[in-house]
Parts: sequence; C-alpha cells; structure tokens
Amino acid sequence: MGKGKKGGSGPSVRRALRLPVGERPDLAAIDPAGTPVGPSGKAAGVAATAALGERLGALQERLYAASTGGDRRRVLLVLQGMDTSGKGGTVKHVIGQFNPSGCRIKAFKAPTPQELAHPFLWRVMKALPGPGEIGIFDRSHYEDVLIARVRTLVPRGQLRRRYGQIRRFEEALAEDGVSIVKVFLHIGYEEQRRRLLERLDNPDKHWKFNPGDIDERLLWPAYQEAYELALERCSSEEAPWYLVPADRKWYRNWAISSLLLEHLEELDPRYPAGDFDVAECRERLLAT
Amino acid sequence: MGKGKKGGSGPSVRRALRLPVGERPDLAAIDPAGTPVGPSGKAAGVAATAALGERLGALQERLYAASTGGDRRRVLLVLQGMDTSGKGGTVKHVIGQFNPSGCRIKAFKAPTPQELAHPFLWRVMKALPGPGEIGIFDRSHYEDVLIARVRTLVPRGQLRRRYGQIRRFEEALAEDGVSIVKVFLHIGYEEQRRRLLERLDNPDKHWKFNPGDIDERLLWPAYQEAYELALERCSSEEAPWYLVPADRKWYRNWAISSLLLEHLEELDPRYPAGDFDVAECRERLLAT
Repeated sequence: MGKGKKGGSGPSVRRALRLPVGERPDLAAIDPAGTPVGPSGKAAGVAATAALGERLGALQERLYAASTGGDRRRVLLVLQGMDTSGKGGTVKHVIGQFNPSGCRIKAFKAPTPQELAHPFLWRVMKALPGPGEIGIFDRSHYEDVLIARVRTLVPRGQLRRRYGQIRRFEEALAEDGVSIVKVFLHIGYEEQRRRLLERLDNPDKHWKFNPGDIDERLLWPAYQEAYELALERCSSEEAPWYLVPADRKWYRNWAISSLLLEHLEELDPRYPAGDFDVAECRERLLAT
Repeated sequence: MGKGKKGGSGPSVRRALRLPVGERPDLAAIDPAGTPVGPSGKAAGVAATAALGERLGALQERLYAASTGGDRRRVLLVLQGMDTSGKGGTVKHVIGQFNPSGCRIKAFKAPTPQELAHPFLWRVMKALPGPGEIGIFDRSHYEDVLIARVRTLVPRGQLRRRYGQIRRFEEALAEDGVSIVKVFLHIGYEEQRRRLLERLDNPDKHWKFNPGDIDERLLWPAYQEAYELALERCSSEEAPWYLVPADRKWYRNWAISSLLLEHLEELDPRYPAGDFDVAECRERLLAT
C-alpha cells in the first residue's frame, strides 16, 4: 500500500491545475472560463466526466474496504470560492457519483456562538472524515482568513497567526493519512452577476438568494486579494491548492472529478485480506 | 403546505407494503422474493426505478428549500433487516439518487462504551436529520429490541419497556415534523446463505464478511421472532412499518424509492417566497 509519488511529479490534471506552492497568484490574470487541461467543449466534457464515475465509485469502495482492515487513510476535499462559484453544484454533481454512505459532507455557515467560543479550528476538527471516508467541506476554515479578513472580524495580529495555524493543521492532517484536495473555484465577476440574476429572475431559486450576496459582491477586489493571500500562505507540498476555472459548470465537474480520481489512484487502496479461515466458514455455512 | 392524508388512505405502494398496525406478522408466510405491487420483472423494475430519480431529486430540493423558509419537516428512513438483506445496497442505489448534501446517513454499529453509558435512544437522537434533510438509519434503535433480545443483552423487564419507549419516541418525532419511513427488508433464509457464500467466494468481498455472521444466522428463528414482536409492538399510525421483499435487489430498490417518493409527494414541500425586494435587488446588482 505505497503512498505513491508526491507533489510536482503527480499526474497530469493535478500538475496542470496546481498553484505553485508559496507563490502569490494573480487571479485577475487567470481566465475563469479557461480549460487549461482536458476537454475543451461541453459535450466532450460531460461525457468524460460520466466516464469517470465507475472508477471513482470502485476506488471509493476500495478505500472504505481498506479502512476495515486498519488502513487509516482518507480524503478531504475542500471547496472554496465566491458566492455562486459552484460549491453546492460540485457536491451535487461530483460527490453525487460516490456511494453516499462513505461521504461526510459539511457545509460551514457563519459560526454559532458555541463555535465562536472555541478556537476557529475546533468546528473543523469535528467535521473531519474518518478512515476510509471522503470528507467534503463546502466552505471551510479558510473563511476564517477570507471573510474574517475582508470584514475585519478579528484583529490583524490574530488573522496573521491563522495562516500559520492552518498550514500546520493541514500538515498534521497529511501526516495522519489525510489526502487534502483544496480547490479554489475561480469564477469571473461577470459570470457571478449572471448567476445572481438567474436566481433573482426565477422564484424557485429565491431561496438561494440573499441580498447580502450583493454586499459581498461589492467587496470583490478585497475578496480576490484575501484569496490570493490565502492561496499563497496556506499551501504546502502536502496540501497544495488547485485552481479550477469555474465559469463553465461542466468543466468544473470534470476537473474536480479528475483531481479526486488522481488522488484516489495515487492512494491505490486495497481490499484487505480476510482474517478468517475461508474453507472452515464455507463448511459451517453450508451446514446451515 | 398541508400535511396531506395520513395512514391507510395513503397511495398505492405504501398501502400495499404497509404492515397492519399492532398486528403480529407471520414472516414465514410472506414470500421474500415476492413482488406484491409494481413491476414484476427485473428489466421493468430497473427502468421504473431510474424513472423515479428525477422526481425524487426535485422533491428533495424543494424539501430542503422549504427549510430555509422555516418549514421544519424532514424525512427519516429506517432500514432494518438480517445480515445481507440489502441495507447498504439501499443506501448506495436508492439514496444515491438524491443530492448527497441533503442526506444525513448514520450506520449504527455495536454501541460504544460512551453510548452504553446513556439511554439507548441517546445516540439515535444525535443522528436525527435536521429540517429539510433526509435522514437514513442503516440499523437503528431497533437493534436494541432485536439483537438485545436474541442475545439477552438486557434484562427482560428493560427490554419490554423499550417497545413502549420506541413507540413514544417515534410519535414525538412525528409530532415534531419527522416523516418516518420504517422499512423491514425481508430476506429469505436460502437467499442469505447464497449471499454469504458469494462474499466468501470473492476475496474482494471478504471485508464484508465476518465469521460472526454465521453465528447470527444460526439464531435465525429467534431473530425472526424478535422482528415479529418489534413490527407488532412498535408500529403506530404515525410510524407504521413497511415490509419490502428483499430477495430481489431490483425490487427492493424500486419499492423503497417508491415509498420515499410517495412520502415526499404527500409532504408536497414548496419553495419559500423570498423576503426581499426583487426589483430593488435587481437594480443594485445591475449597477455592479
């Protein structure tokens, strides 16, 4: 059960979408409608994603099975991005390809008073996946350096310390057998307006809309800067960031499915050997 | 948002599979390979189940959306049945049709020391779905009157009290807006042997096999009796039991999908109206 190769020598989708560790990206210079690797058209992209489903499901089953034999490894997908960037859609369409019993999904909202009474990583620890599981964070501890920064929810000194705390936290997770797949869903300013309008224009989507979304949108440059800082300061070889252009939903689904597949393939989980005498069990069973 | 009709006047699949409240069923007299309602062949059954997926997903989204507007209603699917009866397969194939972000799945194992230090319903309370969610119990509080009875894990007096405690617990849930769908997966003795053998004969399935499964199988008559008692004593108009013949996996999937669909249709959840000024929001958004 080798852990495979790490970092820059990884397979192609990872290599293509991975942000350089410790460098500050220039988000404005990256096309949110781009298709830097893989299919470039919708029909091909949808078909390619559908074709991944079976392998994803098979690898997930092996990951879960391995945990029953003592393998503690697990996967954690962290989804971050501006409003409407497709975090929920990713859960529905990408995670929907897996067996739901092996998925542990947590959508982080504004912290409760109880959560605020603890260190910011407290609620995150409680939501981590167990051995053999695939954890999914829809928003995450990164909100504590994103909205917390833009809205000045904590003093600057505390904010600065959080970057290092997040880095060390993720390194410890990696050392404990968690494969962390951090995805920044990069959506464009125009596309966000289009999606918010779509929600406003369809009464069946009003429940997804909050007037506060517009207030957040007005802070777009501050959020982009906060993201650039988080992407720079909270990356490591063990837990790098992947940037997924998210203006095209089919591309987002293909890219994240592919990232998960490559990570699972690298883990290469194995069905555990039974610790029982098969012939004896067979005989006992046939006697019933 | 009417709660619709209750009990025996419900739609057809529910009516056909519902066990009479307060009566003791004779499980040995019920064909586990039967198809008492709906499709009777595999091809038609698989197609019929696939055809339900879209409506299930749409109703689930409405249920979740309604919760954001204050609707507290939610669904709880309770899966019980002997080993290999298909509880895990139901989660994979039936629950896999839903958006995983709205599903709260809990597989109950042997209680931990901490759980044993609390009343038996303690761990169950913690796993309940929230408003708008679909909860799924793979095993449940019924183990506390099933294996607990067969293996004499608690004194008889305590066991007897549990039937009433479960009934009152479920009534309180129903009063609080939980639609409880309790499914007994009725598998035959021969089919169980076949499925256990299949696990033994395939090394990739050894992780699903436990020699203890044979010990439990040897107690088949005691388990059937314990089930008959639980099905009799823990049923009510608000939380009746459904018996799903489970020897045919495609029928099990169709039947449980249909039961969930009928319950969701009865709930008839509605998208909530937005509590904001659409025209004003539109104008603000277009100005960005």
